[in-house]
Amino acid sequence: CDYDRPLMKTQVPGPRSQELTKQMGQIQNASAINFFCNYEESRGNYLVDVDGNRMLDVYTQISSIPIGYNHPALLKVISDPNNASAFVNRPALGILPPESFVDKLTQGLLTVAPSGLNRVQNMACGSCSNENAFKAMFIWYRNKERGHSTPSEEDLSSCMINQTPGCPELSILSFAGAFHGRTMGCLATTHSKPIHKLDVPSFDWPIARFPRLQYPLEEHVRENTQEEARCLEEVQDLIIKWRHKGRPVAGIVIEPIQAEGGDNHASADFFKNLRNIARKHGCAFHVDEVQTGGGATGKFWAHEHWGSDDPADIVSFSKKILTGGFYYRDELETDKPYRIFNTWMGDPSKNLLLAEVLNVIRQENLLAEVTRTGKALLSGLYELQAKYPAILSRARGQGTFCAIDVCKGTVRDSLILQARNKGVILGGCGDCSIRFRPALIFKEHHVHMFLNIFNDLLAAH
Amino acid sequence: CDYDRPLMKTQVPGPRSQELTKQMGQIQNASAINFFCNYEESRGNYLVDVDGNRMLDVYTQISSIPIGYNHPALLKVISDPNNASAFVNRPALGILPPESFVDKLTQGLLTVAPSGLNRVQNMACGSCSNENAFKAMFIWYRNKERGHSTPSEEDLSSCMINQTPGCPELSILSFAGAFHGRTMGCLATTHSKPIHKLDVPSFDWPIARFPRLQYPLEEHVRENTQEEARCLEEVQDLIIKWRHKGRPVAGIVIEPIQAEGGDNHASADFFKNLRNIARKHGCAFHVDEVQTGGGATGKFWAHEHWGSDDPADIVSFSKKILTGGFYYRDELETDKPYRIFNTWMGDPSKNLLLAEVLNVIRQENLLAEVTRTGKALLSGLYELQAKYPAILSRARGQGTFCAIDVCKGTVRDSLILQARNKGVILGGCGDCSIRFRPALIFKEHHVHMFLNIFNDLLAAH
Ligand code: FES
Repeated sequence: CDYDRPLMKTQVPGPRSQELTKQMGQIQNASAINFFCNYEESRGNYLVDVDGNRMLDVYTQISSIPIGYNHPALLKVISDPNNASAFVNRPALGILPPESFVDKLTQGLLTVAPSGLNRVQNMACGSCSNENAFKAMFIWYRNKERGHSTPSEEDLSSCMINQTPGCPELSILSFAGAFHGRTMGCLATTHSKPIHKLDVPSFDWPIARFPRLQYPLEEHVRENTQEEARCLEEVQDLIIKWRHKGRPVAGIVIEPIQAEGGDNHASADFFKNLRNIARKHGCAFHVDEVQTGGGATGKFWAHEHWGSDDPADIVSFSKKILTGGFYYRDELETDKPYRIFNTWMGDPSKNLLLAEVLNVIRQENLLAEVTRTGKALLSGLYELQAKYPAILSRARGQGTFCAIDVCKGTVRDSLILQARNKGVILGGCGDCSIRFRPALIFKEHHVHMFLNIFNDLLAAH
Repeated sequence: CDYDRPLMKTQVPGPRSQELTKQMGQIQNASAINFFCNYEESRGNYLVDVDGNRMLDVYTQISSIPIGYNHPALLKVISDPNNASAFVNRPALGILPPESFVDKLTQGLLTVAPSGLNRVQNMACGSCSNENAFKAMFIWYRNKERGHSTPSEEDLSSCMINQTPGCPELSILSFAGAFHGRTMGCLATTHSKPIHKLDVPSFDWPIARFPRLQYPLEEHVRENTQEEARCLEEVQDLIIKWRHKGRPVAGIVIEPIQAEGGDNHASADFFKNLRNIARKHGCAFHVDEVQTGGGATGKFWAHEHWGSDDPADIVSFSKKILTGGFYYRDELETDKPYRIFNTWMGDPSKNLLLAEVLNVIRQENLLAEVTRTGKALLSGLYELQAKYPAILSRARGQGTFCAIDVCKGTVRDSLILQARNKGVILGGCGDCSIRFRPALIFKEHHVHMFLNIFNDLLAAH
């Protein structure tokens, strides 16, 4: 169920992709389209395009394909007539769930619940997961301020017209370089690229610096420790400043690895200290695992690398998890129905597929495989950056969730295009990084295939 | 493929539903759950629960089931092996669309495009549809202000920290009683119930009164005309006031029938005048058809009842359309890639199901059927309110998208519960209304079945 190598017939995008992109341009802005795909012919780690090109996929639909294309286990789920109803009858899950849904959660999402988080709310995508996680934190914070969960008459009437105290001036603290989604609440905590935010009204919420680590880590222990300490201090300053401003910080949101923003890592200590700062100041601590979750770091959740049994108050997820949602501690439970709610609240057919993905991860021991593959990838990247120090630097990663910096953004972009024409799909992030986001079934021989192709490109550069 | 009548075995929720709800309460707030469903056994207009009760469904998962449960045409889509790939390989549609996607849009969503709106953007749910429609209006408005689409250096740097001018202080004008979703941008335009908004920070955006019509319409022509004129005047005042406040109105958003807010109607003239006011003041006009779209009013879009060939700049949809998204005029096209963007941008498997729904609507002439059924429903409601004037009033509707007011909220709630125990699922909206939201396959004999059951309840009241 996998091809053995890339097979290129045209430059990418080829003529058929170009024609379809032109047609799509008549319907909507099509300028972000890379090429059109033949998903029927795609298999495992290989994405096939409409011009018959077959490429090794190290980007996997912005990191959202867990176990490769057309995995037989997933095809079996679709072809099982017992499952048809889940695909054609999408329920309003919050009011009329299917009989099997408690089991689906218990045997699915809850089997991979982060430590200390016993509850889970289903959602549909990363944005509604984060938006509703924010709402849960705001509700929790206000009830804490009130000392009880009964709103005043003034709360009830003022919220209907968007005014305080019913719509309070609370804030979420986020980090420069962060990406948490693009609906307006999420977008106020997203700071990775101007084009995401330009022209959209936002909230006056505090933004702290994310540590900028120097590599190799072992040669910069002191600088990096100082850098992280400075960032933590800034967080505390901002919490106090925003409290004085009358916009207290209800929650802190952070990615375990800033992905869109350039694959920025920080130490386990940084995150554990941050979690303590949140607690000390009465803010909820929300770990956004939308991109990092699902096994690519070699653990199911990236925050497991911190080694904490109390990592967070809320952990949100989507992408590789196929459904969206968030785990949360008991005390973040809302006090009344219909506060965290929308029509669909996710889609049970995605929970069905997720259950199968989790089975495959266990049966094929994929987390251990990812760890092994990731080691090969990272040491390959170390070798390349040693060989081409004028072009590559700062190789870094956990599991296969790796990245490397290129000397210039334009060189990065051109390397990605060249790699594609040689049959490897890569993604960029930040100003000048390449991010590696293969599926969990990416093996060592795929690593070597990529490294050979990439090495040739660099040699010719 | 439909049952012939309700069949009740227990009170609802029955013992099995109660047990499952208790279990669900261990996992998340389960207090909005009505009962658990057996979707496999549900058919057509009948929803079957886990205690074996079979109920005529006049609420259809908050108005989101277009052609009933387990429609054979949809089951066929799932069982066709050619479609399996669409269900297991969810693409990042904005960058790597499937080969068939242009055709899917051309033969699907674009065949029902509102007049004057040639372009369509796929999305996943009502909230991301509206959030992105708002963003499109903000971007359009700012480019209009600039006179070109090139942001300044200051725009680019300030937007990264949520500040003006990059994140401008623009607003969306909405209406009291409106519902446009619950993510934070949408929520700032939602004003139907406090529990949706309480404790969530919001934007200082203008909110106009929605006309409160008196019924029967033909006896209150003058009052209603005056009422609508007053509301339109307020809109103009608010636009001017917010411009002076430094928060210009970039767009006006409105439902053709306010659904959550109590099934509030206004005349075609009201909407056409409002559209003209929007144009006169340089605001975009966004018609939110998330609940009204898809045929329930007897036309595919409720705004078609206005008889305008230039009804709106943006029309958003979801629910019965199965996919989310929005249509828009050419001039609302964004100037650059990645401005209206997220990982999934919808889900092509939903477009596949939608194509089949549109086929069924055409083949079975369902819009005409809805009109006929709706007439029977509305005249039945007129009769009931004439018979029980102390309980019922203000029967109103378009197609089967009908509602009636009950003397008190508590009486309304108890009637809904009693009806359910007699085998009819109804939904409430606003303070004291019952809303009727059957599927498009609801026929006259279903109307009579409902009216008989409802009449018995009222007689016993
Ligand atoms: S906001 Fe998540 S699916 Fe629409």
